Amino acid sequence: MNKNNLVMSKDRRSFLRKTLGVSVAAAAVYFASGAMNVVKAASKKKVVSHVVNPGELDKYYGFWSSGQSGEVRVLAVPSMRELKLIPCFNYDCTNGWGITNYSKQILKGYTVGDTHHLHLSYNNGTYDGKFGFINDKSTGRVARVRLDVMETDAITKVPYAQGTHGLFTSRHKLDAVFCNSEFAIPLPNDGRDIENPDKYVALHTCIDAKTMKVRWQVMIDGNLDLCATDYQGKYSMGTCYNSEEGVLLEDMMSADRDHLTVFNLEKIEEAVNQGKGIKFKESDAPIIDGRGKNPYVLYIPVPKNPHGVNISPDGKYAICSGKLSPTASVISIEKIADAFAGKIAPKDCILAEPELGLGPLHTAFDGRGNCYTTLFLDSMVCMWNIDKAIKGDKDYLIQKLDVHYQPGHINASMSETKDADGNYVVSLNKFSKDRFLPVGPSYPDNDQLIGISEGRMKLLHDGPVAPEPHDALIVNRSLIKTVKIWNINDRKFAYERKLVQDLGLEFGANKIVRKDDKVFAIMSSIAPNYGLKVIDVNLGDEVTIVQTNLDKVEDLTHGFCLSEHNLNFGVSPGETASVTFRATRRGVFWYYCTWFCHALHLEMRGRLLVH
Amino acid sequence: MNKNNLVMSKDRRSFLRKTLGVSVAAAAVYFASGAMNVVKAASKKKVVSHVVNPGELDKYYGFWSSGQSGEVRVLAVPSMRELKLIPCFNYDCTNGWGITNYSKQILKGYTVGDTHHLHLSYNNGTYDGKFGFINDKSTGRVARVRLDVMETDAITKVPYAQGTHGLFTSRHKLDAVFCNSEFAIPLPNDGRDIENPDKYVALHTCIDAKTMKVRWQVMIDGNLDLCATDYQGKYSMGTCYNSEEGVLLEDMMSADRDHLTVFNLEKIEEAVNQGKGIKFKESDAPIIDGRGKNPYVLYIPVPKNPHGVNISPDGKYAICSGKLSPTASVISIEKIADAFAGKIAPKDCILAEPELGLGPLHTAFDGRGNCYTTLFLDSMVCMWNIDKAIKGDKDYLIQKLDVHYQPGHINASMSETKDADGNYVVSLNKFSKDRFLPVGPSYPDNDQLIGISEGRMKLLHDGPVAPEPHDALIVNRSLIKTVKIWNINDRKFAYERKLVQDLGLEFGANKIVRKDDKVFAIMSSIAPNYGLKVIDVNLGDEVTIVQTNLDKVEDLTHGFCLSEHNLNFGVSPGETASVTFRATRRGVFWYYCTWFCHALHLEMRGRLLVH
Repeated sequence: MNKNNLVMSKDRRSFLRKTLGVSVAAAAVYFASGAMNVVKAASKKKVVSHVVNPGELDKYYGFWSSGQSGEVRVLAVPSMRELKLIPCFNYDCTNGWGITNYSKQILKGYTVGDTHHLHLSYNNGTYDGKFGFINDKSTGRVARVRLDVMETDAITKVPYAQGTHGLFTSRHKLDAVFCNSEFAIPLPNDGRDIENPDKYVALHTCIDAKTMKVRWQVMIDGNLDLCATDYQGKYSMGTCYNSEEGVLLEDMMSADRDHLTVFNLEKIEEAVNQGKGIKFKESDAPIIDGRGKNPYVLYIPVPKNPHGVNISPDGKYAICSGKLSPTASVISIEKIADAFAGKIAPKDCILAEPELGLGPLHTAFDGRGNCYTTLFLDSMVCMWNIDKAIKGDKDYLIQKLDVHYQPGHINASMSETKDADGNYVVSLNKFSKDRFLPVGPSYPDNDQLIGISEGRMKLLHDGPVAPEPHDALIVNRSLIKTVKIWNINDRKFAYERKLVQDLGLEFGANKIVRKDDKVFAIMSSIAPNYGLKVIDVNLGDEVTIVQTNLDKVEDLTHGFCLSEHNLNFGVSPGETASVTFRATRRGVFWYYCTWFCHALHLEMRGRLLVH
Repeated sequence: MNKNNLVMSKDRRSFLRKTLGVSVAAAAVYFASGAMNVVKAASKKKVVSHVVNPGELDKYYGFWSSGQSGEVRVLAVPSMRELKLIPCFNYDCTNGWGITNYSKQILKGYTVGDTHHLHLSYNNGTYDGKFGFINDKSTGRVARVRLDVMETDAITKVPYAQGTHGLFTSRHKLDAVFCNSEFAIPLPNDGRDIENPDKYVALHTCIDAKTMKVRWQVMIDGNLDLCATDYQGKYSMGTCYNSEEGVLLEDMMSADRDHLTVFNLEKIEEAVNQGKGIKFKESDAPIIDGRGKNPYVLYIPVPKNPHGVNISPDGKYAICSGKLSPTASVISIEKIADAFAGKIAPKDCILAEPELGLGPLHTAFDGRGNCYTTLFLDSMVCMWNIDKAIKGDKDYLIQKLDVHYQPGHINASMSETKDADGNYVVSLNKFSKDRFLPVGPSYPDNDQLIGISEGRMKLLHDGPVAPEPHDALIVNRSLIKTVKIWNINDRKFAYERKLVQDLGLEFGANKIVRKDDKVFAIMSSIAPNYGLKVIDVNLGDEVTIVQTNLDKVEDLTHGFCLSEHNLNFGVSPGETASVTFRATRRGVFWYYCTWFCHALHLEMRGRLLVH
């Protein structure tokens, strides 16, 4: 099946005629051959639709990476309505992210992020509802999001790495987060070897999911793109599109095969425990050398400039997409142990390389043995059957569906868990072109929702979205447990708690304390009043406002915006937040509530008087 | 009708029973009494729905203020899908707003905004499709958005003003933008009169819509909240909820009536032309004194702590909502001239004060003589008939509809124009509570879409939305003409054009020029390549990247993200953008394309080498 042909050598139209012909036949066979659970499930539903009527709740949460806006988006699926933006690597003046003392401690001065892959923490192959983890490609970082409050609580800089892109979590338990650096650079990147790309190196990094500290890193040959983990906790892996280690585009695409790079976690941990690995001053975590022949890293040759790697819900297969080859590679997870042991060649882990179409990128699963692979160049999603592809049955292709246009990532409901349920697929399309009202030269992307519960793909909804959501998860709502009101003792408020206790006060004390040129205003908000209506300071004072929302009614958020001071933040019920700034101008500056909290919300304000 | 009662003295349940009883009868009368155009229009439609199927386009643009996120949102109506976020007062790392040289020149260091009211430019009572204008309450500014490219192109700081809140444009032609300062402060606010609130003053400001320069300001008694203009260009106006000029909440609500404050534009312009008014050093625009008895400002007494003021599409009436009174005031625009002339008392401009329900805030219009007023405390929208209210008919109330929950602004399709078409209403509800999947202590708001084309209100859709969209417009799509690709000579690129010309180069020249310690990299992007693959600089150099997207395919945007440098921006087809930064660390730093532009997008990158 795999011809290793260049994309341009394919005749798309004849290819389509052929596969579409196959697809109808394949579907008939599929239905006739015992997929009764699908038919039964479908017969229960009257309409497969994205519509959720007023007052009804969606069945799924969607967790979206936002791309260049550096945040996490929470959607409701199937309605595709956006419920929340969780600030992460970005600066967000709505919530004061990058403004409050808490967020500044996490961000450390950075305000740009480029998020691609959000994955949740797991227990025994399915989501445990505790955390989300997401990459920042722009500055090589990994962030953690608490799912109980849906807020970012930690960001870790990945040392010695640039272009941190692929990311995945341990699937057997809350353990580690693995991430891939896409760009090779000198190690360390301190001015050495600038002109010598042969010395550049890319890294695979393991971060402890609980402490968010880097455990270890591995140097590899080539580079790393997407990331995946198995279901047993034995392997992490990454695609490599630049086995050539070129620094120019033409070099990066010269080889017919690149790699699926697999990391043997047991061997690596063993080496780390034995004190192996090198260290530089930026990090205490050892760097293991996985280049060349070594016991830590396996390089499985796959065609050509591969992009996505996804693990089937039964844990048996890694599906690796060719990008510049019209094929996907089906790799046996079981055989990887033999390849590490030298019993078989790395290439012998490949069970099949079915031809799917032009520009295959990513694959989702329905839990019924079928794959849904995006075809970037064809602007299609290809539905195909893994077992048939392995057996070499010519009817492995089930259906191709036009999407609009140029799809990148794809995911299905619970796809990346053992509980993949085969209800919905979302195709994240990079171009929307004519699908929405025009909005000038910068277009929205188009996230299309596809129903698959009836055993065929049915396009349900076009969802315009701010560029560029690279990846998305669709998670059964029963797995996510949130709190409605902050516990006033939450660990988020540790800095403010110590500050207030050191002053001998409590949250919401409504006292102003001066220490030399530092002024601390410890205040409450209860609709429609701030506990302090006037704060007197002197020119040049450093002023800290600690604001506690003592309202206990759900959804009753207050804000604190200080006029002319580039300062705003929100405080939800039970929440405490603080800002510190210097009073640099004389005059009267009103602070006011920014969340419409009460009929007298507009009247909820007070004055900072700078004498 | 107006009892001037406090909210708390009302029995909500008995009030509701009474009005709901009235509402059914009123509707029957309404249909029987000649509203045939409505019935006819409704009979053409099979289903009033928010659903827009894949491949179909919405009928309306929605222009939303975003509240605390400081931007403008563009939606599609009736699907309520968000098409675009237009960065404005905020910092947005997606598009490089706050990062590019162009946006930095506009933002002048501020990164926080609090937008409330977006209004478009008009010609002859309807939208001309040229500009949007929006306030920032946090720093007293007004921004202009170009509608052809849907980007912010100017921000004006309003001098001597704090809490710039209400804003409206001239409705007769592209002329002026009027805005209200909500907070009274010393004039000027340089340290004088801090402890003397009696000397504080609030201002009404007129900004030239073409030059974005302040023309004049007017000092008023009390404060100013929402803003409106008539259809003839004679008056601007604002509600005043603090006629008491209190600085504490209890003072602000002590009077039973506050004001609708009306500005006589002819008289003010006359005074300005005569050189009247005072000036301080911050601004050349004169400040006219409109306090006390004067020819410029009319104070119409309306009950109690009013909030919204909206002008009916026929231009006849200003509807002013009581907030702490269960009434709206219907004010004759025609009679205002007589009041200014002293022929009648200001209060005689009031034609009716119909009782609507608890916490009336804002009013929308259907062009058929009906109003839709939000009732914040009742969590309802009240549909009522203006003519009947004026005549004193007891069946002026047509329908009340529950909304979820606590609605603020409301608008209807083309409501604020002479072409109000009575198809859709959107109620912007401040609380969503149980309407969506829970997302932690910070909830989305709920923008509810209501169909009104059948002559009754029908709830169609719950739209979760990031807090807190204060206001929204629904604009017929035929009025908005956008460009798909930038003209390479657009005025947006003036700074970069001069820079490149001064170097003797053209956009996309792909040359690096050094001048002392300044390095200019003038480069192109054409998928999947940057025109420059390596940029060599020395530690300490000031580096300017000028990036021109030479792709001419619509929607083919590129990005430029420089690893580890907190820098990202996008360039749409035909666009040029630039950034300037200092090279402060030695090493190799990959820059890469952030918009998935091509199958080889990931390979589209280059290196900054800092020696």
